[in-house]
Amino acid sequence: MTRKESSRNGSIGLVKTHSVTFSGADSVLHLESGNTLHPLTVAYETYGELSSEKDNAILVCHALSGDAHAAGYHTRNPREKPGWWDLMIGPGKPLDTNRYFVVCSNFLGGCKGTTGPADIDPATGRRYGLKFPFYTVKDMVKVQKWLLDYLGIEKLLAVTGGSLGGMQVLQWSISYPEKIKGAIPIAATARLSPQAIAFNEVARQAIMSDPSWNYGLYEPDMQPESGLALARMIAHITYLSEKAMLRKFSRRMINGTEPGFKLEADFQVESYLHHQGSTFVKRFDANTYLYITRAMDYFDLHQEYGNLKKAFEPCTGSFLVISFTSDWLFPPAQSQELVKALRQAGQNVSYCNIGSDQGHDAFLLPGNRLGDVLSGFLTRLEKES
Amino acid sequence: MTRKESSRNGSIGLVKTHSVTFSGADSVLHLESGNTLHPLTVAYETYGELSSEKDNAILVCHALSGDAHAAGYHTRNPREKPGWWDLMIGPGKPLDTNRYFVVCSNFLGGCKGTTGPADIDPATGRRYGLKFPFYTVKDMVKVQKWLLDYLGIEKLLAVTGGSLGGMQVLQWSISYPEKIKGAIPIAATARLSPQAIAFNEVARQAIMSDPSWNYGLYEPDMQPESGLALARMIAHITYLSEKAMLRKFSRRMINGTEPGFKLEADFQVESYLHHQGSTFVKRFDANTYLYITRAMDYFDLHQEYGNLKKAFEPCTGSFLVISFTSDWLFPPAQSQELVKALRQAGQNVSYCNIGSDQGHDAFLLPGNRLGDVLSGFLTRLEKES
Repeated sequence: MTRKESSRNGSIGLVKTHSVTFSGADSVLHLESGNTLHPLTVAYETYGELSSEKDNAILVCHALSGDAHAAGYHTRNPREKPGWWDLMIGPGKPLDTNRYFVVCSNFLGGCKGTTGPADIDPATGRRYGLKFPFYTVKDMVKVQKWLLDYLGIEKLLAVTGGSLGGMQVLQWSISYPEKIKGAIPIAATARLSPQAIAFNEVARQAIMSDPSWNYGLYEPDMQPESGLALARMIAHITYLSEKAMLRKFSRRMINGTEPGFKLEADFQVESYLHHQGSTFVKRFDANTYLYITRAMDYFDLHQEYGNLKKAFEPCTGSFLVISFTSDWLFPPAQSQELVKALRQAGQNVSYCNIGSDQGHDAFLLPGNRLGDVLSGFLTRLEKES
Repeated sequence: MTRKESSRNGSIGLVKTHSVTFSGADSVLHLESGNTLHPLTVAYETYGELSSEKDNAILVCHALSGDAHAAGYHTRNPREKPGWWDLMIGPGKPLDTNRYFVVCSNFLGGCKGTTGPADIDPATGRRYGLKFPFYTVKDMVKVQKWLLDYLGIEKLLAVTGGSLGGMQVLQWSISYPEKIKGAIPIAATARLSPQAIAFNEVARQAIMSDPSWNYGLYEPDMQPESGLALARMIAHITYLSEKAMLRKFSRRMINGTEPGFKLEADFQVESYLHHQGSTFVKRFDANTYLYITRAMDYFDLHQEYGNLKKAFEPCTGSFLVISFTSDWLFPPAQSQELVKALRQAGQNVSYCNIGSDQGHDAFLLPGNRLGDVLSGFLTRLEKES
């Protein structure tokens, strides 16, 4: 192990993103919106080894701005940041790659390797843009199922993910109950509140108001950066809590302590948001942002299945529902609603409301008990017959 | 009384906005930013009659998007909406115009008659735009003091207002303690939280990202409507509560119950926000929005006076601090911090945390106990010697 590698303590190390293209005549994807997609490429990563009994696979579902790269590093560049859930996935970590085979794929309609609005439409030779069909969380889960079939995984030990990832977990437990032993929705909800829809809508308006958006017809290097950055800034406020912002920034100025009497960033919280916005536009596609937020808005298990109890009746696995006390975007009450409905539907469910001032993003951050809670539940799951 | 007038039940009726221009050599306004303004016009309205003892005057301070027109109507048009606090001001209402002489002025730097960024700079003959000097809540209060001097009011029975209006109330009690018998800050704070600054900043970015903004150099009929509307939409989310949005809109669609699979407004909460945005741009100036939100950001009684107790030590009147349980923009804890500091400073203070699911905007809405609380306190104030 080189020095650089040893500084990446506890990481799975170098990993690669793989991809598979479903192009056979039998692999036309029928979407909930009534449209079809074909062919379809899925980007994914795996960590650890699938056991000979094929009983140690865990599917990790990513959130809005995530991708297949959940753990480890793609290069030896010591400045590279690891995958988005490196905190949880790796040797000796809660999703212990010495014991589990962890799979993460970029979801349908993402912009990180799986077919989405930023890709070339083979029918026209041009980027899909707004010609890409609308897709739902259920569609995303269907594509993940295709991937697992391709990988030869018949049953998952567990499926987990936070935020939009947690929505996918819930949909997995309903769409393919026989395929999962355990489901762990984190900071999730059965449906967005109107307030969360409102925040998605102002973020979309930020993008669509940017003249560079041009009704989705922009070149990859000419995307509506200003609008997308603003969308990210708005959303980022909702990922933190008031208390976390107070702890991180208080009302500190960038320079000194006196008001600068200017419109440019003067408070540290402002420059932090600007930084969040400007780094996001380098790694994300604006049209994709529109589609994914719409998929979140439309997700509604109450509406789709009549009520939440009915939605969960077909489930068979064990559930661990996790929320964070300071999450005001997907508040604990929404997780508690899931727990109540799961119990009414006769499911085996544990619930943990983790104390944290980190807001919705707590599932991505150190400093809370998520890791312990996850590893405890996974160990229990392994022992279940 | 005509039929139309009688339908305006309990209103003060027809009112006019007056204005006064301070143009004398002794009326150069020295601002906290170090700049000066001269001449200065102030738009104001009054309701009721000043008593011969001049002891019944109440100053009402408006919030971000308010103006001098706090009560009554400007025309006989039956479709006209009354002033922004008509609910509270009028004959027999909590601010009873049969008993009190109520004054409301557009604050310094507003765009509703008082000199501000949207006005012509007499030095250049062109609109101020970004040449307008930055102003603070303390500057606003200084100008209100000029107006009261002009109106011959030596001492106010009370000064009141909500949100940014409440900040002005607090500044009044510190800047001119001998001039007020009672102070009623409503849904106010001694300083914005970093979260509130963050929301102001994304709203400003929405305006400044609109190419029509043109660094503030736009013609009145060519202002950055899209950016200003978006700013208002963002802010409006913070004025409501999650619960109020759930009650008002739930997840109802505009048409039917099924997802429309489109980017245009599909949920009622979206079209509501669009309506809020598009009506706002007809009545408000984009540059002014930038300046006022900055004045809010910079307001910090802790920082300015060393600490909050010290800030309130010079006060002499009675205080009634009012918050609303569901206000998450200026949360009750911030009002409770005011109450604690006022008590430590030896002030006479009452506190009322009014139960409401209406969020920050509750002070503008019927359906809560604000009116009762206000009229009770005013009656008590009258009796105080």
